[in-house]
Amino acid sequence: MTISKGIQLFPRSEYLRRLAAVKAEMARREIDALVVSNPSNIAYLTGHTAYSSYVPQGVVVSVHEEEPTFIVRHMDALAAFHESFLGQRNVIGYPENLIANPDRDGYDVIIDFLHDLGLANRGVGLELGSLTLKTGQAHEKFRARMPQARIVDCSRAVDWIRIVKSDLEISIMREAAAIASGAIMRAAEVIRPSIREADAAAEIIGALVRGANGKPGTAVTDFCMCSTPRTGTAHIRWSEDVFRDDSQVNLELGAVRHGYTAALSRTFIIGAPSDQLRRLHEAEITGLEAALDTVRPGATCSEVANAFYHAIEKLGFRKESRCGYPIGIDWSEPTASLRDGDLTVLQPNMTFHLMLGNWIDEKLGYVISETFRVTEVGVEVLTNVPRKLFEL
Amino acid sequence: MTISKGIQLFPRSEYLRRLAAVKAEMARREIDALVVSNPSNIAYLTGHTAYSSYVPQGVVVSVHEEEPTFIVRHMDALAAFHESFLGQRNVIGYPENLIANPDRDGYDVIIDFLHDLGLANRGVGLELGSLTLKTGQAHEKFRARMPQARIVDCSRAVDWIRIVKSDLEISIMREAAAIASGAIMRAAEVIRPSIREADAAAEIIGALVRGANGKPGTAVTDFCMCSTPRTGTAHIRWSEDVFRDDSQVNLELGAVRHGYTAALSRTFIIGAPSDQLRRLHEAEITGLEAALDTVRPGATCSEVANAFYHAIEKLGFRKESRCGYPIGIDWSEPTASLRDGDLTVLQPNMTFHLMLGNWIDEKLGYVISETFRVTEVGVEVLTNVPRKLFEL
Repeated sequence: MTISKGIQLFPRSEYLRRLAAVKAEMARREIDALVVSNPSNIAYLTGHTAYSSYVPQGVVVSVHEEEPTFIVRHMDALAAFHESFLGQRNVIGYPENLIANPDRDGYDVIIDFLHDLGLANRGVGLELGSLTLKTGQAHEKFRARMPQARIVDCSRAVDWIRIVKSDLEISIMREAAAIASGAIMRAAEVIRPSIREADAAAEIIGALVRGANGKPGTAVTDFCMCSTPRTGTAHIRWSEDVFRDDSQVNLELGAVRHGYTAALSRTFIIGAPSDQLRRLHEAEITGLEAALDTVRPGATCSEVANAFYHAIEKLGFRKESRCGYPIGIDWSEPTASLRDGDLTVLQPNMTFHLMLGNWIDEKLGYVISETFRVTEVGVEVLTNVPRKLFEL
Repeated sequence: MTISKGIQLFPRSEYLRRLAAVKAEMARREIDALVVSNPSNIAYLTGHTAYSSYVPQGVVVSVHEEEPTFIVRHMDALAAFHESFLGQRNVIGYPENLIANPDRDGYDVIIDFLHDLGLANRGVGLELGSLTLKTGQAHEKFRARMPQARIVDCSRAVDWIRIVKSDLEISIMREAAAIASGAIMRAAEVIRPSIREADAAAEIIGALVRGANGKPGTAVTDFCMCSTPRTGTAHIRWSEDVFRDDSQVNLELGAVRHGYTAALSRTFIIGAPSDQLRRLHEAEITGLEAALDTVRPGATCSEVANAFYHAIEKLGFRKESRCGYPIGIDWSEPTASLRDGDLTVLQPNMTFHLMLGNWIDEKLGYVISETFRVTEVGVEVLTNVPRKLFEL
C-alpha cells in the first residue's frame, strides 16, 4: 500500500508490550490464536479507530507471530493500514462481494486464514459477544468450519488487560480530559433562557470537536442533555425545547482523542436552585470527595462506591445506581465496576469515570462526575472544572 | 410515572399498525412472544431513542397483548416512558443492582416476565445478534432458563418489516434529508486552505445539530471526512491536518431526526480537479442518473446496482463495492442491498442510501450519494444539493 502512515500515537514498542500481555493471557488459556472483534480492543492492539465494525472484522493474534493480522473489509483496509502500526502484509482486505452476502462473509476469510496458519485445529479464542453478523450464527460458523478447534470465549480478555493504562495512554487521556473540561465551561456560556437546547448542544459539541490546547477532538461520542422537565431521565441527548427562566440542565459529555475518552458531568440551573437541589448538590460533593479520598492502590472498587454511599446517606440521601466504571478506549469498559461488592483491586494507572448521577425521583435528578486516574499513592482527577452547581 | 410524555412523532395507530405487521410475522413463525433487543427495532416499535442499549434490554411483544412491554434499566425507564407511546404499566425498570452483576442481569428479568406471562414454554423469538452481554452467554441463559421454549432466531424479522416506510416516516426522513443537505452546503463554505479539518468538522456537525427549517437534528451519527492524502480511504472521521491549496475532501454525513437518518455525500476540491478526478466525477454522475432512472416498484436491487455499474464501465471505470442499502432508523439497515444479485423487489416507500463512493486506487477516491424513496411510479430523491464536484 502506498498510502502514508497517519499520526502514530504510540511507538511500536507500546503495541508490542500490549501484545505480550495478550499472548501471556493466551498461554494461560492454552490457545494459539485469538480473534479480536471488539472495535475498542482492535484500537488497543493496532491503533485503528476508523469505522469498520459494521461488518465482520478481526485482528488475529497468533502466539507464533510478533505482529497480529487485521482482516477487514477491502474498502476499509487502507484506513486500517494508515491508522494502525501494522505492516503492509498484516492488513488483509477481504473482497467487496462478501458484503451483504448470505453465503460467505468476512468471518469465512478469517477462518480460511486460521486454516492457512495451521491453527484451525488448536485452541482458538473468540470474542463471542462482539461477532457482528447480527444473526447469532457467526459462532456456529466458526464451530462448523473448524471442527477440530477448541473454541474458547475470550470476550473480555483484552478488556481486562487494558484496564491498566500506560503512561503514554494517560497522556492522551489528559488531552481528552482537557477537551471535556473546556466543553463544560462552554456549556456554562451558552445555556441561557430562550436558547434552543439543540443550539446549545451544537455549540458544546463544536467545542468537543475543536478541542483544547491545539489538540482537536477526534470523534463525537455520547452526549446527554437532560433538561427540565426531563431532569429525572439520564440518557436523552437533547430535546426540541427552548431553555426557560428556571430550566435545570443535567449535562453528561465525553471528549475523544484517538479513541481515548474522558467523561465529565455537571448540573446547570438558570436562576436560583431549590433548597432540595442545593442540599442534594452539597451531599453529592461530600460524597464525591469521600470517594476520591478512598482511591489508592490496594483499595477495592467496592470501597470507593461505599465511601460515596455512606457519605450521602449521612446527609439524608441515597443513590440506587453504581458509582462508575473504568474508562479509556470505551466510554464504559466492561470489566470492573464502582459498585458495592466489586472486589477489583485498584492499581496505578487504572482510570475511571466516577459517575455520581442521582435520580432521586421523577422531578429531582442531578449529575456530577469526574474522570480520574489511580496514582502510586492516591488519585489524580484528570478533568478540571469547578465542582459547583452552575447557576446561570 | 409522573413525567410528561415527550414529542410523540407518530400517533398510537401508527405503532399499532407496525405491531400488527410484527404479530403477523410472529404467527408465520409460530411464536407467541418476541423479545426485541436491537435498538433500532425498539425505536421502530415504541418511539424510544435515548441511550439504553449499553446494557441488556428488550421489548417483549406478545401475540396476546395489544401493547408490548419494554424492560429496561431502571435509570432509563423514565426516558423510555417519556419518549415512547407506551403506557405506564408497559415500561418496567429493572433494579440497578443488576448492572455489572455477573450472577443476574436484565435478561433474567425478561425471562422472569416471559414465565409470568405463561409464554416461557411456547415459541419465543430472540434477536440473537443483538443480545448485549458481550460474552456470548446471553443466548445460553435464555435456553437454560426456558428449557421448554422453542427459541427461534428472529434477528432480522422486524428489520424486514420496517424496510417499507409509512408516509409519516417519509415526512420525518424529508426533514432529516433537508438537514443533511444544509450541512453539505455548510461544508462548501468552511472547507478552505489553512483551516483545520477538525474546525471544519465542528462547523458541519454544528449544522447537523442545529438542523434546518426550524427542525433540529436530534443526534449525531457517523461522519466521514477523508481528505488528501487519505482520499483512498472511506471511513476516517477527520484528521489533525490543515487543508491545503490542493486538498480534496470526500465527505459522507448523515442527519438524524428522532432516529430517522438521511445520508449524503459529496466531493470537494480546493482549486482545480485533475483530469482524472473530473472524468471520474462525470462517469459517476452518469451512473447515478442511470441508477435512479431504474428505480420503480417491481425493479430489483440488483437492477439498480447494475445500471450504475454498466454506465460507468462504458466510461472506463469500475466500482468494486455495492451501490447502497436501505436507510431509515439505522444508517444502514441490514436487509436488502443495492448489489449485483440481490433480488429484493423495490416497493413504494422503501428508502435507500444510494452510495456510489468509488475508491479506484490508493490516491483516487471519490464520493457521491443521495438518499431516495421509491414512489408509486419511480423515484423521489430526498436529499437536495447540486450534483457537482464542489470546486472551492
